[in-house]
Formats: sequence, structure tokens, C-alpha cells
Amino acid sequence: MTLTTNPLEDDKLREECGVFGVYGHSDSAALTALGLHALQHRGQEAAGIVTYREGQFYSHRAAGHVGDNFNQESVINQLPGASAIGHNRYSTTGDTVVRNIQPLFADFASGGFAIAHNGNLTNAVALRRELVQRGCLFQSTTDTEVIIHLIATSTFDTVVDRTVEALEKVEGAYSLVALHNDTLLGVRDPYGVRPLVLGRFEDAWILASETCALDIIGAEFVRDIDPGEMVLIDEDGVQSMRPFPEQPRKLCIFEFIYFARPDSNIEGRNVYDARKRIGAELARESGVPADLIIPVPDSGVPAALGYAEQADITYELGIIRNHYVGRTFIEPTDRIRHLGVKLKHNANREVIDGKRIVLVDDSIVRGTTSVKIVEMMRAAGATEVHMRIASPPTTHSCFYGVDTPTRDQLLAAQNDVEEMARIIAVDSLAFLTMDGLYRAMGLPGRDAKTPQYCDACFSGEYPISPTDHSGNISSDQLSFLTQLA
Amino acid sequence: MTLTTNPLEDDKLREECGVFGVYGHSDSAALTALGLHALQHRGQEAAGIVTYREGQFYSHRAAGHVGDNFNQESVINQLPGASAIGHNRYSTTGDTVVRNIQPLFADFASGGFAIAHNGNLTNAVALRRELVQRGCLFQSTTDTEVIIHLIATSTFDTVVDRTVEALEKVEGAYSLVALHNDTLLGVRDPYGVRPLVLGRFEDAWILASETCALDIIGAEFVRDIDPGEMVLIDEDGVQSMRPFPEQPRKLCIFEFIYFARPDSNIEGRNVYDARKRIGAELARESGVPADLIIPVPDSGVPAALGYAEQADITYELGIIRNHYVGRTFIEPTDRIRHLGVKLKHNANREVIDGKRIVLVDDSIVRGTTSVKIVEMMRAAGATEVHMRIASPPTTHSCFYGVDTPTRDQLLAAQNDVEEMARIIAVDSLAFLTMDGLYRAMGLPGRDAKTPQYCDACFSGEYPISPTDHSGNISSDQLSFLTQLA
Amino acid sequence: MTLTTNPLEDDKLREECGVFGVYGHSDSAALTALGLHALQHRGQEAAGIVTYREGQFYSHRAAGHVGDNFNQESVINQLPGASAIGHNRYSTTGDTVVRNIQPLFADFASGGFAIAHNGNLTNAVALRRELVQRGCLFQSTTDTEVIIHLIATSTFDTVVDRTVEALEKVEGAYSLVALHNDTLLGVRDPYGVRPLVLGRFEDAWILASETCALDIIGAEFVRDIDPGEMVLIDEDGVQSMRPFPEQPRKLCIFEFIYFARPDSNIEGRNVYDARKRIGAELARESGVPADLIIPVPDSGVPAALGYAEQADITYELGIIRNHYVGRTFIEPTDRIRHLGVKLKHNANREVIDGKRIVLVDDSIVRGTTSVKIVEMMRAAGATEVHMRIASPPTTHSCFYGVDTPTRDQLLAAQNDVEEMARIIAVDSLAFLTMDGLYRAMGLPGRDAKTPQYCDACFSGEYPISPTDHSGNISSDQLSFLTQLA
Amino acid sequence: MTLTTNPLEDDKLREECGVFGVYGHSDSAALTALGLHALQHRGQEAAGIVTYREGQFYSHRAAGHVGDNFNQESVINQLPGASAIGHNRYSTTGDTVVRNIQPLFADFASGGFAIAHNGNLTNAVALRRELVQRGCLFQSTTDTEVIIHLIATSTFDTVVDRTVEALEKVEGAYSLVALHNDTLLGVRDPYGVRPLVLGRFEDAWILASETCALDIIGAEFVRDIDPGEMVLIDEDGVQSMRPFPEQPRKLCIFEFIYFARPDSNIEGRNVYDARKRIGAELARESGVPADLIIPVPDSGVPAALGYAEQADITYELGIIRNHYVGRTFIEPTDRIRHLGVKLKHNANREVIDGKRIVLVDDSIVRGTTSVKIVEMMRAAGATEVHMRIASPPTTHSCFYGVDTPTRDQLLAAQNDVEEMARIIAVDSLAFLTMDGLYRAMGLPGRDAKTPQYCDACFSGEYPISPTDHSGNISSDQLSFLTQLA
Repeated sequence: MTLTTNPLEDDKLREECGVFGVYGHSDSAALTALGLHALQHRGQEAAGIVTYREGQFYSHRAAGHVGDNFNQESVINQLPGASAIGHNRYSTTGDTVVRNIQPLFADFASGGFAIAHNGNLTNAVALRRELVQRGCLFQSTTDTEVIIHLIATSTFDTVVDRTVEALEKVEGAYSLVALHNDTLLGVRDPYGVRPLVLGRFEDAWILASETCALDIIGAEFVRDIDPGEMVLIDEDGVQSMRPFPEQPRKLCIFEFIYFARPDSNIEGRNVYDARKRIGAELARESGVPADLIIPVPDSGVPAALGYAEQADITYELGIIRNHYVGRTFIEPTDRIRHLGVKLKHNANREVIDGKRIVLVDDSIVRGTTSVKIVEMMRAAGATEVHMRIASPPTTHSCFYGVDTPTRDQLLAAQNDVEEMARIIAVDSLAFLTMDGLYRAMGLPGRDAKTPQYCDACFSGEYPISPTDHSGNISSDQLSFLTQLA
Repeated sequence: MTLTTNPLEDDKLREECGVFGVYGHSDSAALTALGLHALQHRGQEAAGIVTYREGQFYSHRAAGHVGDNFNQESVINQLPGASAIGHNRYSTTGDTVVRNIQPLFADFASGGFAIAHNGNLTNAVALRRELVQRGCLFQSTTDTEVIIHLIATSTFDTVVDRTVEALEKVEGAYSLVALHNDTLLGVRDPYGVRPLVLGRFEDAWILASETCALDIIGAEFVRDIDPGEMVLIDEDGVQSMRPFPEQPRKLCIFEFIYFARPDSNIEGRNVYDARKRIGAELARESGVPADLIIPVPDSGVPAALGYAEQADITYELGIIRNHYVGRTFIEPTDRIRHLGVKLKHNANREVIDGKRIVLVDDSIVRGTTSVKIVEMMRAAGATEVHMRIASPPTTHSCFYGVDTPTRDQLLAAQNDVEEMARIIAVDSLAFLTMDGLYRAMGLPGRDAKTPQYCDACFSGEYPISPTDHSGNISSDQLSFLTQLA
Repeated sequence: MTLTTNPLEDDKLREECGVFGVYGHSDSAALTALGLHALQHRGQEAAGIVTYREGQFYSHRAAGHVGDNFNQESVINQLPGASAIGHNRYSTTGDTVVRNIQPLFADFASGGFAIAHNGNLTNAVALRRELVQRGCLFQSTTDTEVIIHLIATSTFDTVVDRTVEALEKVEGAYSLVALHNDTLLGVRDPYGVRPLVLGRFEDAWILASETCALDIIGAEFVRDIDPGEMVLIDEDGVQSMRPFPEQPRKLCIFEFIYFARPDSNIEGRNVYDARKRIGAELARESGVPADLIIPVPDSGVPAALGYAEQADITYELGIIRNHYVGRTFIEPTDRIRHLGVKLKHNANREVIDGKRIVLVDDSIVRGTTSVKIVEMMRAAGATEVHMRIASPPTTHSCFYGVDTPTRDQLLAAQNDVEEMARIIAVDSLAFLTMDGLYRAMGLPGRDAKTPQYCDACFSGEYPISPTDHSGNISSDQLSFLTQLA
Repeated sequence: MTLTTNPLEDDKLREECGVFGVYGHSDSAALTALGLHALQHRGQEAAGIVTYREGQFYSHRAAGHVGDNFNQESVINQLPGASAIGHNRYSTTGDTVVRNIQPLFADFASGGFAIAHNGNLTNAVALRRELVQRGCLFQSTTDTEVIIHLIATSTFDTVVDRTVEALEKVEGAYSLVALHNDTLLGVRDPYGVRPLVLGRFEDAWILASETCALDIIGAEFVRDIDPGEMVLIDEDGVQSMRPFPEQPRKLCIFEFIYFARPDSNIEGRNVYDARKRIGAELARESGVPADLIIPVPDSGVPAALGYAEQADITYELGIIRNHYVGRTFIEPTDRIRHLGVKLKHNANREVIDGKRIVLVDDSIVRGTTSVKIVEMMRAAGATEVHMRIASPPTTHSCFYGVDTPTRDQLLAAQNDVEEMARIIAVDSLAFLTMDGLYRAMGLPGRDAKTPQYCDACFSGEYPISPTDHSGNISSDQLSFLTQLA
């Protein structure tokens, strides 16, 4: 019933979460709020912070942006203590009830436990079913709560041992920060699908999904948390453990293409620089004579700059983005519904008119936005419209913490490039090759036997078995909806 | 920081809850809302309704009055189904967070389970400690959740057997209504401390704390649920079970003195009539020459009428109550703080001036209101002020679902009647005798060996052991505060 | 779409407003909030307070009860100053937008001016039309704003002279309090239709609609403001003026029957006492053999007590009122809509069953509630139901500040007593006679030439010409609806 | 108490308003909402729409963005009719109470009148004083209300004549849209300081501040409304009048520098193109050897592109902007307050480190942001930092509808360029020359006698006398604060 400008409808994949943790700073809640603000692009639906002081945990969780919910001193003052963790959420289910907003919290016999999770478990439905059978009562519909019940019912003594046992049972992608009394934990799954970094701010330790969250508070980058590493941070400093069997590294390559902020560095590589290189690679692979290179704002900008430099064609802002777009907008009557497309973008006719243009975008998901943008370019007088995509065709769903449509909705899963070009109505369409992508990452190319990154959304090669999706569990059950509406 | 007119500050004991259930009516949520409205006096802090339809439960819970939260068709329409339970809450802890508002709900392996509880468990802290030790995670701070975890972790097969096993473990007072899929359960604890009645509305069955909740919907009173009885209501009708060892009946006698509505009948006795008889008994026991009988509104009204009739002295409304009083009001500056007493009551000087008056109230808890009322009467020109209390001195705390101050705050626990008269500054003060109270209930007197009612608040004889209060658990733990603020 | 328990639907006439003013107390806003709380029965839709300090006015106005909107120290602290006026509103039009909530405020060239009005002007439509023609822009739809524009456009120099000129032009009923900079004004119209009293609290002066508002703050009653009197209160004390031609006194007699609080005294007469005398007069005039006298709660209580004493018949609470009734409630489905009647009242069958009863109510407006109450009594087993009304038949609308239905909706305007008895389905029905009413007021009877009170609602004799209702203005225009929805 | 990221604190001048109007389309409210959304950059504090249908006006006004307040079908449905006007507000006073949100509405004797105003009157205080003296009561603190009272009190017969008379009395800048019953009016002041365009959508006529608001609904651009032109649009079409004496054209040149959207065309000139030309002119005038051209996002982007192209130096995104910035954010403790600067911007160190950079921004107001950005660049490793500003030094306040600080807060009013360079701590600083600016506008240079645009903020040459600021009125009075807080 609405002309949505929802990011989902933006025809983009969406990272589901960002996490942040502080140990040892009296302003821990304020630092966490700032960190989460810097990570807002990783989850815009809700945000939460839990702090700990002297035997007591404090929590504030709310739907909406960090800057809307944690901008009051009164809120921050209700979150005292030197340890804190925080979470930005982007929900896949749309079920953003408060009970699902992280950090989740539980009362263990040994004290309180709060946890924030970036990623997605691939056997959570199966585990949850077993736990409910044993009498565990779930209060949220998130996969993360499975971890908490596994810890609560573990027979080991210490929370660390219990946590290790719990994580040995789960499959999937996770970068976790957790707080057990005044101990801060950080864990990255054995494949390292999602990033997690360690930083230092004055005498405090910081954990964060991306380095941009260190920058905002002026913290120093120490190092990436390694795949399969668990760190315990307390008054004795940072203790590192590697309790899980080693696995090949499988950082999500889409972090470089779209998810991460351009000013972050992940595993030693600057994201903006990677995107420009991708653009240059794309120009080398699929150059085409044209008058102008036009980015689809804002995600296509770095690749378009890289393309334009490499191709030596003028870069112009031929599409103007309205920055005041919220999540949804009016759907007037049928007669003017088609107007909705322009809520977010407008062609700058004076620039476009009479020109051969190359549109550069980061990826194509459903293709709906691409169709409209191209139509808008032609209406503004473009004589030729070529589209260049800064990634390979997105043909498969992600089960590791990214909101992807099912395959029947992925344009590239249903059509070859030629058909896509026809649907989008461009004069030519080209995607970056898989090897081109790996070259842009500084590698000679993709190692077909053991790809250096997780590229399942392009290749369909899933490094971690998607158990819950393997056929014997219905999609209804996957949604984890409890019976309580 | 506020001049409160909170019922707590009213210097009254407070019933903690009212419950209501429907089986077999397509308007089950609307009927439950009406029933809860009639039971509003049993809990004003929050209300909730859970309904069931075709494998799905629906819930709405909110702080505030029933009439404020369930008066919209849109709310009722979101609660479809022919089975429903509802709950009015009055919290002892002041911690009315949403997660504590009943009915509580849990996902069992066998389906959803919703429960509403009137009463209080006396070994909930001990049980909760054990359950947490086993890995159970609590989501509320209510004693009621203990019952849910006991059912969830029971090794019996059926929910009925699991519920029986769970209730065998708990001690205390409980009148419960619960919904497991489309089965409605009703249980009254073996002593029958809190009331629970069965009614019939068209083809549907009704469970309710008091008969006034049957009246509001025009339902027919069928019978009281017996102490120790469990009823299962489904498409086969009402099945009655008595799974617990028999105990002496111990209905709370304070229901007749103050808690229940005057138009309700409990175990065959009309509450208004009982109160008038109490007043008459009081006049017989402690008559005093006077010009006027003045009720302390509204709770003293029926006893004052009974007293006035028996004593043949004119009954006058010498105290006018402001019906628009909410829960709290401004605390202006120190200079005018003393004005607060008049937010709720005002003396009608024209009636009082120059008269010898008898004030009739139902009970004295802390005595704070009594002091102010008497002072107000003298300021209005009363020449003599006698106070008559329609119950014995309240000397002990209740652990069975009533909010009572600790003994050091109970005026009658700290002072004899003479001292109380001095504190309240009356010319004379008299309480009803224990035997007089039982006589008003139609009995020859109190059976000292096995009192016919629970009168622990007057006698200190607790029929059910208050385990959690027996000394080895601190009052902090009693509050069930989790570590999460 | 709702089963309303709205006072309007209560089938009562409604006083429209209460006013309160303070001069010379540093807690003026808190005192005003308390005073308005005591006057809450005169208007429940909205409340507002304006204060003045050092050249600046401060205002807070909100829909809802005083106790809900002025119970925060933060609100009171935003209303500094030693002068304040306040207003409780009950709207006739249902159009309670914020701009209509009083006190109204205007910026005159000589400074700010705030005004609060109890009553109703009878030539406001005509005056408004003239003012709009001259270019005056209205911001509310209230008649009170006419007064402000008349003052603003007066050619006199001082605000006092301007106010006198303005009031010379208006017709109707008004008890006003106003604040012009630090001067407090009080005015009562020449007929004195609505009450207004002067009180003293410490060194401060108080103006209030009723004495109960003096009582709540412990202020001393000084005197009634006289009909046609204007008082100016400033640092020089109270200055009294009588700028208008003298008129016969016409205090609204319905204040004694229903509007005013029983603990108030108006023009030297206690309201509770007047009501009991009315009940006694009613028993003398229309006694009938019966077992019980039952008040229709709460408004019938004092008259029922007076009746029972005079008739020497037992007074019983046969109808229990639910005090938690808000303004509206659910309208479930058609099948259970009829249940709504019991939201507010329930018969106490144990009292009623098998008895001949006399129901005493203060008045009959539409008769809708009476029909339901009688039906409820019969269902509860009453063998005879007699109704006695503590006022003459209400046959005419009020144009002086009371919300009355039009004559076609007034039961007594359309039917004689016999027909009314049949409609209400009682065994007998009697109203108090006009002379009986005046006798209860301590007079020998009604002075037919110059009645001692305004009794237009009973007699149709309007002491002030209802200009706007005289036929040349349509009812649409009367509503003052601006063109802006 | 907050680290603000308020646009004000952004150190930018702010356009105060955007206006939009529709005549003759059944979806007028939805079209207006879309149009206001496209004009959101002209005012983000509040938005309002008034529509007209069959003798009745409908209004919705609210603080916040258009997309937050007009995105519900229910809201749009409450605004029926084929004529509508709308307004985006940016307040200079911070006093965004609802009564100040436009369109303002008044009831004239001839019918309703709604008005929306972009610009600022320069003799409103003087006029208001006169009007209050005559008895006019103001309900808002906006200058726009002066126009309404002048129309209301005009002695002419028709609203058109009254409006002309009113506008003959006011001085200042105004682009107005108004609705009188079903007639849509548009007026641009005789100097044409603010833009206003006419468009055609299907059979309807559109008025809008900028062409981007035509684009969003797919309306065709017809022509600019001329300075001094008044258009009346009704069922007979568009009637054009020129009732005022002709004046030299004085379109605000800052619309091209910063205010207007890059995809708008104003008086025949594309804004994006103008900004690129300005950048190129700047490079020609003040080129400097460097490795990178870095825009200060987002306002410096087009000029930076123009500069980079002209200078043939690489353009890089060295500063990343966080798009989730709301208006305010936490102010943690003193220790971490300095972190606030990074809420909105982060240096991309990988790009900057070791480079000589040229920062391009559109203007310098207070200079506060510039200081922080430069500091951030140096911290990121820039070896040289040169700043180039795409406008002349901003030395004077604007009185024509732009929120400007007073001169003592304008960096360029207090310092010469050399001092500014020292304060901002750059290696070099240069502004565009006045002639350079006019050259970029396609002119040979500035006509010193009669400048072709209003450039008072750079030159101090005010084309319209700022009467209210001329010394005999205090700044307190200028704020139009009524006495009611």
C-alpha cells in the first residue's frame, strides 16, 4: 500500500547487523552509541546497548536509528558502567518486535549474559527444535537465542567453556560480542565470514565490525580478530583462544563490493580503493565508447570513478539523489502511482540530453531499480545507455547474515546477460568477471579449488552447509515465528 | 516527588489480580475485555488478553486500565478466536514492565501455552533458583513464570499431567486460568485462598474471579470452582479433576471486608450483605452515643449503613470524594505540600459542624489516611470523633497475593488499640472482634482449631507455609529482580 | 462505533466549565492545578493554565483531566509567576482542538491578555460576523474569543474600560477570570447565572467557580462575587466595580440539583443540604409504599437519603457503579452490543430480589439511562419499581453554558408524565413540583413574576434573550465551525 | 547540551522555505506531498498542506520531514479536493510551534484563505506593531501573518485587490502561493529574490519553488513566474497581472551556489552546470599544484568536479559522509566531547596519506566546520592542505529569507583572507572573485551599478531596504516573540 523507498526495495542486498563492544572506559555507553552510529549502514531497523556495572546490567533497545534513540544524555546516563556491547539490527523477517532487538540478555546461574551477533546460523531451526523439546522456552524469534540456551544448558562449569561447547554445536556465520558480568568476549566463526576488529581507545579495548567505528571515537586499530578466534577481555587484558578446528578463510567478498563503508579497511584492504580498482577492472574488461560515465548514486560512485579514470571518459553526476528519503512514502492513487520512482532519484536532463552514457552500479539483484533508472535516462535524452556492473551476476542466496531474495527473484538466476540487457532495456550490459573481481582484490585470480573469499552469491559454492535450508525443514519453520502473534 | 493518590498510599491492602477465561464464543476477546473491566478493582496497573484460533495465539498486553487499552474495535479485532483468557494486574514490586504483564505465554513443544494467575506462590524464589541452575532462562520477574518452566521441563507427556506435576511442586495461593491450544484450564489451589467461578454464556463457558464479571456479560452463574479442583474445558464440555491432596478450605476473609465488589457473591455469600452485617455487628459490639454515622468513602459505605441502621443514628455523607483522582498528582513546593491530603477527600463542613460523629472504615493499614481524615473532621467542627473499623486489627502481612506492607509499617502490629486511638487522635477507637467477624459471616464464631477462612492478616496463623519468607532468603532475592535494569 | 459511557450518553446535562484564578502567590500554577482538580466535575475534556511573570506569559493547555496533565513538577515549573488563571472545559461541539482549550490568550498593544470563561454568550454569532466583516481573524471556534476581539478593537484607553465596553456588547452568561499583565480580573454577568467566589489563601487572593476549590487549598471563603460585579486584583488589593445596569438575580438553580459539588456552598446555601431537602420534599409530595429507597448512583444519592429519611424507608445500595469507567468502550459485535449497559452499573440482585423499590434520580434528560436501569431492576427481581425525580421535568434547552439536547430529544418536552412512566416502564413516576423545588431552597415558593433563580430548563422562561437562537441564524452558523477542518 | 549535527551547526546558510501549489487535479494533496518532498532541502523543520473542496478547507501541518508526515494514505485522504498548497519550513528562530507552521489559514468574510511564503519581509515588525495597535490579534510569530491581516483589514472588495493593496505595503522578498476558495494565487515580489515556476501536469496547473518539484511528478515546465507578477489560476486558466511598479531583477545568486537542488533550472540556468562552471572559474583564478582535488561532501562536489576537470588533477573522495546523521547526537562527557566532529565526516586515510590536497567547499560561514575538516585531513596524513571556496567571502547577513548569522559571527566579516587561512590552518586559501562568479553565470562580469543578481551577502549592497533592521527596532522585537511562552 506504499510506494516504498525501503532499502529492500532499493534492490540491494542488505547486511544484517553491526556489533560493537567496549571494555574499560567509564563512558562505555556513549562510545558504543558513537560506534553503532558509524556502523548504522549495517542495520537500520533497531539498535540496542547493554552495559554492566557492579553486578547489575543496564539495557536500552529501540526500533529506529542510533541517532534517534541514543542521542539523549538521559538515555546514556541510564547505561552506566565501564563495559558495554551494542548492536545494529537489520531484520530479515520484518518482525522487529522489541524482544528481537539485540543485544539479547539472559540470567544465568553464574550471572547475567548479554550477546550481540552479526551473521546467521544455518542450523538454528534444528537446534531450536531440540531445545524446545527439552523444555527451553524461547523469548525471541532470532537464531541468536539458540546460542544462549546452548550456553545455559551446557554442563561445563565456566561460561567460557560453555560458550565454546555451544559454538561447537552451531553452524553458520557469526561475529559475536558478549558481556558476562565484567568480561567482554569477542568471537569470529572459524571461516571468518563477517569481519571483526580489535581497537584501543585510551586504556580501553574496543571490538567492532568495521574500522570506521574505531575512527569515529579516535580509537587506534590494533588488528583483525582472526577467523575461529575467541578473545576474552578483562582486567588482565586481552586473552586470545582458538578453540575450534581450523577452516579455510572465507571472508564475504560482498563486504568490499557493497556492504562495508568505503572508509573501512577489512583484513588489510581499503574498501574505497577496492571499489575503484573494481571499476577500473570493469573498464578494462568491458569498455565501450561513450560521452559520459554516470554513477548510480550512491553505491556506484567509487566504481564509476575508477571506471572513468581508467577509460578516460568524463565523470558526471547525471542522477541526483534526494537525501531526505525515508523508508516509505505515499502511494497516491493508481493514476499517479508510477510517479514513485522519482522519490529518490532524478535525472539531471541538462547533463544527459544528447549523450551516450555508461551507467555504473555495484550489483543487480531483482533489476527493478535498474529498469527505472534506464527509463529515466532515456526520458532525459540519452542517445545510448550502457550499463556496467561492478560485480559478477548475483545468482544465489546468502545464508550467512545477508538479506537476499530467493533465487526466483534474482534477475541473474533466471536470465543470461543478453536477456537481462533486454529486460533492463540497455544498449549493452556487462558484469565484472569472477577473476576480474579477485584481481581487483590484489590476487592473480580466483583459486577455483579453494576460493580465497566466500563468493557463494555469485558461484553457488557454499563453504558452510546451509542445514536448515537443506529441504527437510519448511520455509515456515525457517522463519522462527512463534505461535504468538 | 509526587503527592500521590496511588491506591497504595490510600492506606489500603490491595488484591493483586483478576482473571477471566472464555471457551466457545466467537466474541471471546470482547467478552474477556468486558469481564476484565468488571474485575478492574482487582488490579489497575495493567491488563492483557490472549486468544487462540487455528494453531495461532494472539496477544495484547498494556499498562493501564482495561477501558483504556481494549476499547478499540481494532484491538479486539486483532484478537480473533473462540477461546480467550485475560488478566488484570496489580504489581507488588512496582516493576510493571511489559514482560511482566499477564497472561504470560510460552511455546511448548506441544503448542502454545498462556496463563493468568491470581494469588502468590510462597516458594517461587527457591524453585526459580533451581530452575535457573538447570539452564532455564526467565523472561519475567513474576512468580507465575516458575509454573511455566515447571510445566515445560516436566517429563510427563500431556500438558495436563505436566501441569499437575508442576502445581504439586508449588506452594501458595493460586486461582489460574490457562489456554493450551484450544483447551481452557481453570485451577484453584487446594486451600481455595482466591475465588474462581464457573459461568455459562449462551453456548460458551466462562471462568472468572468474581460473579460480577459474569453479570456484566449477562452470563449465568453455574458454581464456584472448588478448592483443589482443576477443570478442563474443550469441545467435550467441562471435565473436573481433583488431582491434589485435600486441604481445609481457606478462602481469604478479606475478600468480604474489602477486596471483592459488593455485588459479587463468593461461595454463596453476597459481599454487600456481608459488609452491612459486619457494620451491624460492629454497632452491637462497640456502640457509642453520636449524632451522625459518616462513612470513609467509598470502602466504608456498606458497613456504615449497617452500623447506622443497627444503631439507629443518622447516616450522612460528611466526606465528599473527588472521583477524578488519578494515581498521582503534583507535589508543589514544600510550603503547600500538606495540601495534598485533600486531593481525594473534602469534609462537608455544613454537615459536620457541631456534631458528634462516628467514622466507619473497613480497615486500618498504616493509619496515615485515618490521621488525615480525623484531622479534617475536627477542622470542620466535629465535637467528638469516634472511629469504628469493620475488621479486626491488621497485624500481619499477607503472602498469598495481596500487597501488604511489612509488619513494621502496620499500625496495629506496632501498637495496641489505645495507642492507635491516640495516634489517630480520636475520642474512641474500636475494631470488630474476630468472633464478630465470623458471626457476620453467618457462623457461630471462629473455629480456633481450624478457622473456617484464611484470616492470617489478623491472626498470624498462616495456613500455607511462607517458604520464601522463612529466613534463609533475603528480601532482595524475594523481589525476583533480574540483573537487567 | 463504540459503546460509550461518555457523560453525554449518561443522559445528564453538563456544566461546561470551571474557572480559577490566583493573585499573589509564588506557587500560583500549583494552586491553580489543585483548584481545577477540585472543579474537575465542571469540565472533563481539557484543562489549561496561564501564568504571568515579569512581562512574560506562560501557558500549558491539554486535552484530558487536570490530574493527567498537570501532575508533573516539570509542567508546573514551566508555569512560573505569582498570578495565574485556569480553566476546565467541557465542549458542546465536540470540537476539542487545542486552539479551543482555554484560557485563550491574545497580544494586545498594552500587553498580553488571558481569559477563562464559564457560561455561554447568546449573541456571539452575530457579534463574530460583524467582527470578521471588519477584518478580525478568529483563531478558535469559541464564543469567548468574541470578547477578546471586542476588547482589542475597543477605542478606550485602558484594558478595564475596554473590557467594560466589550461586555456591554455581549449578552449571555459569563463568569470570567482574566489576566492582563499582573492584574487579575473577575467578572460575573449582571444576572449572575454562573457562580464565582472570592477567597483568601495566605496573602494571596483566589477566584473560583465553587467553594470546594477554596477548600482543596485550604483557602478561606471571603464572599461570592455579586452579579454584575467586576473585581480588579493587583498589588493594591481587591477593587470592586459595578459597571453594568442592575438586573434581577438569576443564579442557575440546576447548580443545586446536579452541577455543583455537594460540598460547595453557593450564595450561602450548601449543595448537599439542598439536595437532601429536595429529596425530603419529593417524599412529601409523592410518597409511595415501598420496601427500599435505591439511589441511581452517584447523582441520586443525596436526594435518595433525604427521601428515605423523610419517608422512613430503608435506604439500600441496590445499584453498584463501576468507578473505572472511562469515556468509551468496545462495541463488540452486534450479538453482544446490548451488554454495554452494564459497563457502568450492575444491579445487586441479593438486595433487590422480591422488593418494592423507589429509584431516586436527580433528573431525566433523554430517558435512555432510566429505561435501562429500570429494566435491570426488574431483571434483578424487583416486584414494583417507582421512580422519583428530584427536579421538575426538563422541558427546555439551556443557552447559558450547559450542554442540553434540543427539545426534540428531551423526554419531558415530548411527553407528559404518564407517557414517560410508560416509556420508562415504571409502576409510578413523579417529578418534584416547581414550588417544591423553591421550597427546598428555603423560599415560600416560586415568585411567578420574577423567579428567584433561572429555571428556564423547566419553565422555558429565559431571563436573557437567546439572540443567536432566535431564528435568523441557522444552526450551522451557531456551531462556529470555521472552514478549516 | 548536545553535539549537534544540526544544519545550522553545519556552518551553512539555510534557505528558509519551499512552496508548492496545484490547481485542478483530484490528487492535489498527493501531488503536493511529492512536490514538497522534492523541495525538502529548502526547509526541514516542518511541512504543511492545505486543500480546498466545496466550501471547506482541509489542513495537515506537522513538525518534521514531508516523508514522515505525509506518507500515510490516511493523511492524504483527509486532504480532499482539486486545489492544494503546501510549504516546507526552516525556522530562523527555532520556535517551531505548530501555530507557526505554514500554510497559515484565516477565515475572511469572503471565505477561507490559506497562504505559504518563501522569503522574508523586511518591514514586518513595523507593520505588525501598527496592526496590533488597531486591534488585530496575531496567532503566530511569523512575518507572513502580517500579509493576512493586511488583506483582512483592506477596504477593497475583492481578495485580489485586497492582496495587491497588502503587498504594496510590505517590503522584502516573497514568493507566495495562496488559496482563496478554489482560486490558486502565485506572486513573486517585484525584485524576484526567490524563484517560483509554473508547470503543467495533465490538465492541472502547478506552482513550485524549483523545477525539481515539477520533475518528481512528471510535470512539464511552462515558465518562470516573473518578478512582480501575480497569477490567478481558476477554471478559466492562468491570468497574469503585474500590479506593482517595476524593479530591477534581483534573483538571489546564492540559489546557484548552494540553496537550490543541482537538478533544478532557475531562470533558464541549470544549477549543477553553474556549480561546475564556478569550480572551473575557481581553478582558473586560484590554481595550485596538488595531487588530489577533494570535495567537502556533499555541497562541494559539483564545484570540485569542475575544478578537477579544469585543473586536470585527480578527483578523489577523501572524506566519507555518514548519511544517517540526524539533527542532534549525544554529548557524552567532557572527555570525549571532541569526538563529535566525526559524527558526520570521516577522512579516508588510505586516500589522503602523503598527498598534497585541494579541498573545495561552496562557502565559509563561521568557519567552524572548515577548521575541523582541515585538522582531520592533516591527521590523515595530508602533506599540504589548500582550500578553495566556490563563492566570494560571505561578509553580510541576508534579510530576504535566509538564515544567516549576524556579522560578528561571519568569519569573512571579521577577517581578511590571510587571517582566515591562518585560523583554518591551511597552506593556502582562496575565494572566487565577484566577477568570476558572474562570469560563471554566463555574464561578462558584475554590473557594479545595477548588479544582475542580489549578492548582498557578499557585497553588502541590499536592493531592498531592511527597514526592521535599520536601528530603531531592537533585535528582541525582531524576533516577533509574543509574550506567551
